[in-house]
Amino acid sequence: MNEARPAGRRSSRVRGRKKAAFVQLPRRRLTNPYPPMEIVSADQIEEIHQASMQVLEEIGMNFLLPEAREILRQAGAEVENDGPRVRFDRALVQEAVAQAPSLVRTRARNPENDLTFGANHINFGAVGGPPNFSDLDRGRRPGTLEDLSNFIRLSQSLNICHLAASGAVEPLDIPPNVRHLEVGLVATRLSDKLRFGFALGGARARDHLEMGRIASGLTWEEYSEQPGLYTVINANSPLQYDIPMLEGMIEMARRKQLLVITPFTLAGAMAPVTMPGAVVQQNAEALAGIAFAQLVMPGTPVVYGGFTSNVDMKSGAPAFGTPEYAQATLIGAQLARRYRVPFRASNVNASNAPDGQSVYESAMSIWACVLGHTHFVMHGLGWLEGGLCASFEKFILDAEMLQMMAEFLKPPEIDAGSLALEAIRDVGPGGHFFSTPHTLERYEHAFYAPLLSDWRNFETWSEDGSLDATQRANRIWKQILADYERPPLDPAIDEELQAFVDRRTAEGGVSAD
Amino acid sequence: MNEARPAGRRSSRVRGRKKAAFVQLPRRRLTNPYPPMEIVSADQIEEIHQASMQVLEEIGMNFLLPEAREILRQAGAEVENDGPRVRFDRALVQEAVAQAPSLVRTRARNPENDLTFGANHINFGAVGGPPNFSDLDRGRRPGTLEDLSNFIRLSQSLNICHLAASGAVEPLDIPPNVRHLEVGLVATRLSDKLRFGFALGGARARDHLEMGRIASGLTWEEYSEQPGLYTVINANSPLQYDIPMLEGMIEMARRKQLLVITPFTLAGAMAPVTMPGAVVQQNAEALAGIAFAQLVMPGTPVVYGGFTSNVDMKSGAPAFGTPEYAQATLIGAQLARRYRVPFRASNVNASNAPDGQSVYESAMSIWACVLGHTHFVMHGLGWLEGGLCASFEKFILDAEMLQMMAEFLKPPEIDAGSLALEAIRDVGPGGHFFSTPHTLERYEHAFYAPLLSDWRNFETWSEDGSLDATQRANRIWKQILADYERPPLDPAIDEELQAFVDRRTAEGGVSAD
Repeated sequence: MNEARPAGRRSSRVRGRKKAAFVQLPRRRLTNPYPPMEIVSADQIEEIHQASMQVLEEIGMNFLLPEAREILRQAGAEVENDGPRVRFDRALVQEAVAQAPSLVRTRARNPENDLTFGANHINFGAVGGPPNFSDLDRGRRPGTLEDLSNFIRLSQSLNICHLAASGAVEPLDIPPNVRHLEVGLVATRLSDKLRFGFALGGARARDHLEMGRIASGLTWEEYSEQPGLYTVINANSPLQYDIPMLEGMIEMARRKQLLVITPFTLAGAMAPVTMPGAVVQQNAEALAGIAFAQLVMPGTPVVYGGFTSNVDMKSGAPAFGTPEYAQATLIGAQLARRYRVPFRASNVNASNAPDGQSVYESAMSIWACVLGHTHFVMHGLGWLEGGLCASFEKFILDAEMLQMMAEFLKPPEIDAGSLALEAIRDVGPGGHFFSTPHTLERYEHAFYAPLLSDWRNFETWSEDGSLDATQRANRIWKQILADYERPPLDPAIDEELQAFVDRRTAEGGVSAD
Repeated sequence: MNEARPAGRRSSRVRGRKKAAFVQLPRRRLTNPYPPMEIVSADQIEEIHQASMQVLEEIGMNFLLPEAREILRQAGAEVENDGPRVRFDRALVQEAVAQAPSLVRTRARNPENDLTFGANHINFGAVGGPPNFSDLDRGRRPGTLEDLSNFIRLSQSLNICHLAASGAVEPLDIPPNVRHLEVGLVATRLSDKLRFGFALGGARARDHLEMGRIASGLTWEEYSEQPGLYTVINANSPLQYDIPMLEGMIEMARRKQLLVITPFTLAGAMAPVTMPGAVVQQNAEALAGIAFAQLVMPGTPVVYGGFTSNVDMKSGAPAFGTPEYAQATLIGAQLARRYRVPFRASNVNASNAPDGQSVYESAMSIWACVLGHTHFVMHGLGWLEGGLCASFEKFILDAEMLQMMAEFLKPPEIDAGSLALEAIRDVGPGGHFFSTPHTLERYEHAFYAPLLSDWRNFETWSEDGSLDATQRANRIWKQILADYERPPLDPAIDEELQAFVDRRTAEGGVSAD
């Protein structure tokens, strides 16, 4: 076999080349032109649907907030008198779910960053939620506002990251009562992409709505026409929505902001040990949440969130980016299509380091997301350790993987020029194509130019320090931060935001949970 | 967002657990139950086909071996009088290609390792061809017979590797005139899986055929009924087959061994700078090779090899596992289906280390291979550096990725038990599934058990040395080698093989190329 690359070919050309500055794909909206992959049949989707309906009708769910139960009772759900349990007639669920829009357009601070969720659109968001961050220099540490700010800067600078990394890491140096205020402020100032709105409790949600409205410069009426925030509503699986999430959901739905309703159904722990069973439960919980949002405010934009994975039954450790996760993601996407609502899944892994495992588990996640027509790929950049850590190096590894996927999703153009018959004729047997007119006309933009990959030969790479991909990622995120430019923000709006945060801080922020 | 895994959950259970021995999936035949992904339309495939036919009719290819040109002349091809150029009428090509079987069953030393190429079967082979090997202990070194032997042992022990790693690395410590003899001997002794047969020149091919026949214990007639060797025939792109490859092809075809006919069409170098153009050339070269094999011996089993990638036009460096590679692989598979011959592609990357880049480039390759219904995934385990190095650690990283893919390809079973309605009812809102009967009945085999992934929590992982995936892979390959058992081989056959090698060595082996 002589399939190895021509060994001598590349060193001389590369050796003299100045180290290129940070190169990335241009900003563009991303769609998947290929049909969605479907791994179960329509009949099997129907079986899952029917089982979910039975769960909601016969078992029901706990809605822990009395106000929420009252909304459900008025809509015709069966609410137990003294308990939190609510049972749903399937017609009620399906009629409510049918009111959710199948295509959602969100408004960002910069209209060029407006996004579409639904159809064959794909949007990549950054990691959200970890209490820790890590990088090669400092190791793993509790998150701070400065680290969060740097993740937001990276998300602003990288075109492949379609949303602000506004929840990339918990800034544990900021007291919980005012943390959401500080986060909203830096997210608005450092990025003009769609940002996350806090929905853990009504007070936080109201604060973030107010900050979102101020940043938009709109009236409440105008602001509620098109979502300018997204938030994530997690079910407290199995079969329960807790008080803070329901309060947040109500506030956000009343302003018609984007609700990503996501059960966290770990098969074997908070969900059945079989993946179809876990998906049945996910589906019941997601549909109940979506229906509830529509009962609060018909037409509230929602995304059906799939977050079904499994635990390692020997240790109880959660696993992510597994074959089971990929299958659950694809089935979840099929279900969301059945209900005509946009779908959310995630780029996840359970690795403790930005290493090969983090990459292959992420790759399995990303492929499942993209093949299934996932509209919102959350945790797309930077997630490690099953969500306990946000990694700066992983952010860059993921950016490269997502850019490669974006290129893969550009269908090949097939025409007389690209079929290249004349070039093949001109070169003939035994020649080479380096300097043909066909090549010279096209070579500059012919192929994907990587952000992170190093294609130099072994000798040149070794002379330059033998840096592996993670070490190079460390250099790249620093370079991106060094090159970062803050997006413009009307000084009057900036001032109004600051005044709001100052006032709410003086009031004591929100009460402790 | 509270989607992070439950932080306290897993440490206690894992801490006391004895480090598990090497765990892997059982041996099983692998199929892809999902429809193949098609990224270009049937009309576009037709355009590529037509362009390839024009290449063969109007431009033709160089066949450098006079004997080969004579075979083609007699079959009706247009052979230039004094030159190597051969032009093919499209009817001649298509009639010859139609004689290739669409489904090929190969015979291994152990019938349990017999393989099927075609339909929706998938077979993963190991890296082949690099002059160097590397591991974390010794770095990158020229290959030796002992290193090759260890790769063969790994391939024998890992069920996910369906073929022997009989060409994993060039044993540069063995003189070229007898190298193929020593390789054939260790490959036969150390593995009972299908092995590679040398086809670089007629003499090597005849030696390997003889060794294959001896190992099988069959007569020539019997041996030629079902292939017991596979070999790779590379076109010397563009548009040329050289003398050693044609000699090897003739010898192997006369014994109806499996020919994997693979143009090496690097877009921008040995092929047009446009991916469709490179695929047109690949297709012309592959079809000419397949047709030639059928003219030598009708019904010779062949595999259509796709190996189209691109060079980095700034440096001339070849790139592998790129978006372009993935697209070319999928289009190649579509073409092979059009001609009803099995398809081969590869798990490739251009990284210099078994790092994140090597993994994400491999992941893109593997997904393209599997989604396209590639029947033979060559270089499936262990390839690095665009084929210049075989890595022991990458072998394990790849084994994990391929095992995960195998699990992904098991369609979910959906029935009353897996839908788990009763379990959901038993647990109810707010409970957990750890100790339900539904879980206890299934937990042992519920989920994929990884070979390499470490799902312990950060603290436990840190206390155990913070080993990343590559470092853990280093331990695992050593453990597999320590556990290796040589497959049985009839002592009479072993003796006959040794006697053959001794005789051919005494004769001086083959003459230098």
